[in-house]
Amino acid sequence: MPAKVDTSELPSRPTGAASRLAAAHAAEHPLKLYGGWFCPFVQRSWIVLHEKRIPHQYVEINPYNKAPEFLALNPRGLVPTLGVQSATGGKRRPLYESVVLCEYLDEAYADETENGPPLLPRDPYERARCRIWIDHVGSKVVPGFYRFIQHTPDKAYTIDEARENFLAHVRTLVREMLENDEEETGPWFLGDAFSLVDVMLAPWAKRLFLIDHYKPGGVGIPGEGQAPGGEEEEKVWARWRKWLEAITSRPSVRDTWSDDEQYVAAYKRYAEDTTQSEVAQATRKGERLP
Amino acid sequence: MPAKVDTSELPSRPTGAASRLAAAHAAEHPLKLYGGWFCPFVQRSWIVLHEKRIPHQYVEINPYNKAPEFLALNPRGLVPTLGVQSATGGKRRPLYESVVLCEYLDEAYADETENGPPLLPRDPYERARCRIWIDHVGSKVVPGFYRFIQHTPDKAYTIDEARENFLAHVRTLVREMLENDEEETGPWFLGDAFSLVDVMLAPWAKRLFLIDHYKPGGVGIPGEGQAPGGEEEEKVWARWRKWLEAITSRPSVRDTWSDDEQYVAAYKRYAEDTTQSEVAQATRKGERLP
Repeated sequence: MPAKVDTSELPSRPTGAASRLAAAHAAEHPLKLYGGWFCPFVQRSWIVLHEKRIPHQYVEINPYNKAPEFLALNPRGLVPTLGVQSATGGKRRPLYESVVLCEYLDEAYADETENGPPLLPRDPYERARCRIWIDHVGSKVVPGFYRFIQHTPDKAYTIDEARENFLAHVRTLVREMLENDEEETGPWFLGDAFSLVDVMLAPWAKRLFLIDHYKPGGVGIPGEGQAPGGEEEEKVWARWRKWLEAITSRPSVRDTWSDDEQYVAAYKRYAEDTTQSEVAQATRKGERLP
Repeated sequence: MPAKVDTSELPSRPTGAASRLAAAHAAEHPLKLYGGWFCPFVQRSWIVLHEKRIPHQYVEINPYNKAPEFLALNPRGLVPTLGVQSATGGKRRPLYESVVLCEYLDEAYADETENGPPLLPRDPYERARCRIWIDHVGSKVVPGFYRFIQHTPDKAYTIDEARENFLAHVRTLVREMLENDEEETGPWFLGDAFSLVDVMLAPWAKRLFLIDHYKPGGVGIPGEGQAPGGEEEEKVWARWRKWLEAITSRPSVRDTWSDDEQYVAAYKRYAEDTTQSEVAQATRKGERLP
């Protein structure tokens, strides 16, 4: 997530369900997640901590006034940052990059009795396939989300193009879900097994309502029986709706979520394309997201 | 690597050392690497196959005339693609994205007697740290290489800016090497342990001479005793030269390398910024590399 974010008028801490989760993890603990309540990259790591029941401390970082001990740990000031106590009890060490954090947590907390099943398959081919689709989410779907929500009438592309671009990347992902789950064993990317692929997209799935709120025509995912492309596309969007319903009601996703209206306020400047966040600026310039 | 590459005047197969390696792996084998001899992303996977002594078949792909069986395996036509035989002997399945391939090979071929030591550390924190720096190579150093080699006088940035940008990303990486290897146990990113971090940068390290060949002022890495920033920078560049010497003479890097002059020919259109490769086009537009 960006180092610079406009949050001067926003609540400085989580609200709603996320405030209860943060309060339950406010006590000093060697493993610390430094985050910001509205940041979707932070939410990825927070979901994994929750899914795997990993004892930790949640530390809300005010992007305008970063705590000195946080900057001492990670001078780059990025959130999410994970503060990890060295095994030998030495000084705390930082990890960052949300995908790296999630994979770290999955590997470092791998006691199935304590932490539940792993969030990447054991089979190396299937692990690699998950990584390909994690990359698709990060390099295609998420940037498509920002180009869409930051669309303004003066852009070189139309809102319809932004919508179609976003939906095309989602369709590609959903087709992969369908092809590898012919028996429809479950709602997840891997069928009945919840995995990091689901985690990676969850924060933006929860934020889709912001596009409906702010953008004319909304996200544009066809309702039942309304897919323009006929039966094949109908099947794609039915599978998507199944996944979306499952992910947005997953306890780890709900419990890391503040009140809806706080996101509406937080994303207003994205919708007007005036935010100075690094993600937003990179989107504006057509660059790779930081 | 790009689907479209200008190679009409280039050799259609590896030359030099790489031609001998390819010939030794020409026989039918269930594990196939589909590659192009001059593609640095392909070389990453090829290095890992060599390092871990993994039995495989190397299949050179002509980007202008992609073999039908290759397109049947991976309709997107990306190289490198790895064709993997399913454990149950079913149909071959594709993997792509060079970082994903390298991590797959490291995980799937993990018999230390057969394959040597793993290319990522066992400790989850150290694994995560390697992934952060693999990301730095892919998102900072490699794009900086292309902005540099594709610089032409009509660009909005100067060649000096391109050089400084590239060198700054290299310096950041080398400082991390220094900080974590105080005892200077070896030349690699992890000191005495060769790892995927070294692999990821190796192909561009081997290609640095192309910038010296084509760009006024060359790469600009200071020689011994010539670092402008004094002692600290002297130490950084001494460490870099140590790494560069080690990586460019590593057998897996040398054996996957064609004759130097073939790369000079292959990168002429990069240096003139007229190539239509996807990597080059993304660089031209300031976009994320594909």
